[in-house]
Amino acid sequence: MYEFKPIGYVRNEFKDFAPPDDFIGARSRIEVFEEYVDGLYKLDEFERIFVLYVFDRSNGFKLIIHPRGDLSRPKRGVFATRSPFRPNPIGLTVAKLESVEGNIVTVSDLDALNGTPVLDIKSCRENVSY
Amino acid sequence: MYEFKPIGYVRNEFKDFAPPDDFIGARSRIEVFEEYVDGLYKLDEFERIFVLYVFDRSNGFKLIIHPRGDLSRPKRGVFATRSPFRPNPIGLTVAKLESVEGNIVTVSDLDALNGTPVLDIKSCRENVSY
Repeated sequence: MYEFKPIGYVRNEFKDFAPPDDFIGARSRIEVFEEYVDGLYKLDEFERIFVLYVFDRSNGFKLIIHPRGDLSRPKRGVFATRSPFRPNPIGLTVAKLESVEGNIVTVSDLDALNGTPVLDIKSCRENVSY
Repeated sequence: MYEFKPIGYVRNEFKDFAPPDDFIGARSRIEVFEEYVDGLYKLDEFERIFVLYVFDRSNGFKLIIHPRGDLSRPKRGVFATRSPFRPNPIGLTVAKLESVEGNIVTVSDLDALNGTPVLDIKSCRENVSY
């Protein structure tokens, strides 16, 4: 068992469930705790960043699912999807970095709800998406 | 505080520290616990996968570092690097998927040491690296 604690929280307009496409282009702020601000030094040199977070509103997991709960999509194993109902409910998004100002990291395309605990931020060398 | 437990372990030839470039092209096996095998269904349709793991041999963190400990590289914040010495020691690699056979996921380019606990596997839509 490994224990992790948030380095900050997501703030955006998405209070509840939203379809994945709604997050495209939408802005979010990641409020990083002051104690970790130095870790953001030179992050602004990157166009895209990986954001790791906790699916804190997911309960339990299913090993085989219809992606996005859409019965028209053939079943897959959870590790072949981005489902939030995973054995370890960790989310990963390649987000577009808009700005870093003090402890606020502003991004687009982050498909995490308001109040989501963020575990890590990592620079992304290429302009990738997934 | 969030608790996560391994879904399996990395098996490869890297028992101790190795320079990052040594992992390029190197094979690793991810031994997934039998209880999660169904979650691998159709993972083999992907060329690349995200592997999330624990830097279980890292103690503590540094917020500002020389990347790779190389004094000739200008200092950066830890979130602008892939350093294992992070507030939450979670590693992320885009690995090349070689095969999925039963509970064994064989990959290349995974820069994790032998015995590393794996937290999650996620499909990667594009042929990306970072």
